[in-house]
Amino acid sequence: MNNREEIDTLIEAKWVIPVEPAEIVYNQHAIAINRGIIKDILPIAHANQRYKPQQTLTLSDHALIPGLINLHTHAAMTLMRGLADDLPLMEWLNKHIWPTENQHVNAQFVLDGTQLACAEMIKGGITCFNDMYFFPESCAQAAINSGMRAAIGMIVIDFPTPYASDADDYLAKGLELRDRYQHDPLLSFCFAPHAPYTVSDKTFSSILTYAEQLDAPIHTHLHETQDEIRISLELNGIRPLERMLQLGLLSPSLIAVHMVHLTDHEIKLVQQYDCSIAHCPSSNMKLASGFAPISSLVNQGVNIGLGTDGAASNNRLDMFEEMRLAALLAKASSGRADTLPAHQVLKMATLNGANALGLGKLTGSLAIGKAADITAINFSNINLTPCYDPISHLVYAASREHVSHVWANGRMLLDDKQLTTLDQTELQYRTTIWQERIATTSKQSI
Amino acid sequence: MNNREEIDTLIEAKWVIPVEPAEIVYNQHAIAINRGIIKDILPIAHANQRYKPQQTLTLSDHALIPGLINLHTHAAMTLMRGLADDLPLMEWLNKHIWPTENQHVNAQFVLDGTQLACAEMIKGGITCFNDMYFFPESCAQAAINSGMRAAIGMIVIDFPTPYASDADDYLAKGLELRDRYQHDPLLSFCFAPHAPYTVSDKTFSSILTYAEQLDAPIHTHLHETQDEIRISLELNGIRPLERMLQLGLLSPSLIAVHMVHLTDHEIKLVQQYDCSIAHCPSSNMKLASGFAPISSLVNQGVNIGLGTDGAASNNRLDMFEEMRLAALLAKASSGRADTLPAHQVLKMATLNGANALGLGKLTGSLAIGKAADITAINFSNINLTPCYDPISHLVYAASREHVSHVWANGRMLLDDKQLTTLDQTELQYRTTIWQERIATTSKQSI
Repeated sequence: MNNREEIDTLIEAKWVIPVEPAEIVYNQHAIAINRGIIKDILPIAHANQRYKPQQTLTLSDHALIPGLINLHTHAAMTLMRGLADDLPLMEWLNKHIWPTENQHVNAQFVLDGTQLACAEMIKGGITCFNDMYFFPESCAQAAINSGMRAAIGMIVIDFPTPYASDADDYLAKGLELRDRYQHDPLLSFCFAPHAPYTVSDKTFSSILTYAEQLDAPIHTHLHETQDEIRISLELNGIRPLERMLQLGLLSPSLIAVHMVHLTDHEIKLVQQYDCSIAHCPSSNMKLASGFAPISSLVNQGVNIGLGTDGAASNNRLDMFEEMRLAALLAKASSGRADTLPAHQVLKMATLNGANALGLGKLTGSLAIGKAADITAINFSNINLTPCYDPISHLVYAASREHVSHVWANGRMLLDDKQLTTLDQTELQYRTTIWQERIATTSKQSI
Repeated sequence: MNNREEIDTLIEAKWVIPVEPAEIVYNQHAIAINRGIIKDILPIAHANQRYKPQQTLTLSDHALIPGLINLHTHAAMTLMRGLADDLPLMEWLNKHIWPTENQHVNAQFVLDGTQLACAEMIKGGITCFNDMYFFPESCAQAAINSGMRAAIGMIVIDFPTPYASDADDYLAKGLELRDRYQHDPLLSFCFAPHAPYTVSDKTFSSILTYAEQLDAPIHTHLHETQDEIRISLELNGIRPLERMLQLGLLSPSLIAVHMVHLTDHEIKLVQQYDCSIAHCPSSNMKLASGFAPISSLVNQGVNIGLGTDGAASNNRLDMFEEMRLAALLAKASSGRADTLPAHQVLKMATLNGANALGLGKLTGSLAIGKAADITAINFSNINLTPCYDPISHLVYAASREHVSHVWANGRMLLDDKQLTTLDQTELQYRTTIWQERIATTSKQSI
């Protein structure tokens, strides 16, 4: 016992589910953490012989999994959660979402909304999110305040908003932000051209040049609705994906969000160019966008992560819900109950998301040398009883209510269901103020 | 203040959502309860002038809704929760579910499994369930022990099981059970012929005769899979629904479960004969059965309730999940985001279920003279913030984790998230014993 190595933290758990190797469940294992890094994963008995931790946490009924990665969200939109549901898409956008954004969105809105989102995400076991919204400097600040890992979207749209005047202005602001935070260990940056129907060829080309120089991912909405494709055919004579191909955007750096409507040829293209997809099942269903051909994409070996989208079209930032829905939807769409088994869905919600963001060496699985981005799920709940397979339970039976502890980069963000970095009372107070303002103007007050 | 009427209980809440009239949310209202019956629904200020309650419960952040009604389950199958996921339907049934049932199911299994299910359902805001399983006397006992309202299935299958030897034996046992409990205020009884492919014409005819004599609903699986329809065409030359029509089974007493595959003509038949449907979205997706044409059925005015199905094919008994999924799936299937708005889904999960069971005058909405079957949802959670429309939040943002209190027939079954009638520790202990037995035989032990 004299030669035990000193470490910060030892977490002992009933199960450790590393995600890679696939389908593995380690019984009665511990994770040794030092300075934010996973130092070891080993049987509890060995851990206590080998390491001398400053603190030990014993989670006897729990599974440890990699922190979940939300591959597509507009975090600040939590302030518009459930503002206008059950409406046709264009009425929802034109009469509710866009007018509300025009009237209310500013740097403070994005800071408050994103902090609220971070609170929700941390309590739901999410350690990393990929964001796209106006005033990304506020998103970065909210992520820093919360302690979460975040990929900040350098948003670009070819029309003016209160945030920026034109494409060059958006790009300049995004790049300045990236320069400011490029050494932050928890922040990374994606170019975030909004969508083919809001961004010109010229702007896409500029972004591509920058993205290649900076080796940064490009995060964009693509093939979300039939209407998007119809409009592209009318305006450009080609479908949006074909346009992206011609512009040179198809590459491993592309994170294409939604990808609901794809021909077999387009599925091949996505595979051939090694693009990643952010699949958002709740949002695609709620907005009636359609059923993404996930089963075919998986069969082609395409890297698919999961995203919640914004709370205005979901209405929760809940990766447990997206995991369950992705699994169920793939089975129903393909007509085969063995499509997308639980372990594959768990990988989508973790490692695949990390790989899409270019962070696969840093996070997304529990492996020695990776950052300690970890979520603990308490299996003692009656709703998880009995348990024949904990990975199956994570996808089909568990909810975010069973998340007990969360660490990002070795720092505990959730301690026995309590937030450690954000003040929930303050967040709720600030949200109430926004709600009153928004409800008054949208005449949705109750 | 001298003339205040004495009552048992007054519940004061932020919102009372009666379900009928539709879309109504009463602010700062109270429900007055006496001897299990809703005596009044009125503003809090008036309630304290008019009534002298023995106890008052103040739920300042909460909505009161009718207790949720699970219109189709096999409650005891919670003991097989997640036993064999991600398998093709016939392999799942033939190699896992049926062998496990043959080896383990007995009266004690059904008692323990149903009590576990009742605990899960109560914690999820469900006050009434419609069950179909072997040894229904154990289901009845579990329901009585839990304090829940239950429609007990008088199950009939045309082959022997450890429960009964032949159709006459099943029927005799069911009828004897009904006679024994017919005066219990919380129990009702449905005939439960399992499915067209397990029940003969002769048996269906006997059941129809009894059901007409006793004015009891008939609860059966119908048109769940394409295979079921194909087999019926091969054996009988007609589709199952047509066979039910010829046998005289189509009537307001029929609760047809699943109804995934329907022609336009069949949708008309269901409407014309005023049958009810138990829609089970999780189960239909997980087993890859298909997409039920709910939007078309709703447009025809068909009475549709929601069910969880058993925990072996779901894997949770969670009506919040079924509500959300029903809403999302109807939008995605119909291609219209305004299909099945939240208030309609809430009615499916409450009043429509009650009407299907012939209990619409007793439960399913919050109305004076009905039984006090009530669920309280705590909206102070950060995941329900902000809130522009509580009915939308119930369907799209809330989870069963937000359920705080539950009453059935005026008796409190859940008090601030704690079960009052069932012993959770004891249930978990008994479940562990079953899990070990089942895992050993199914070689699924982990």
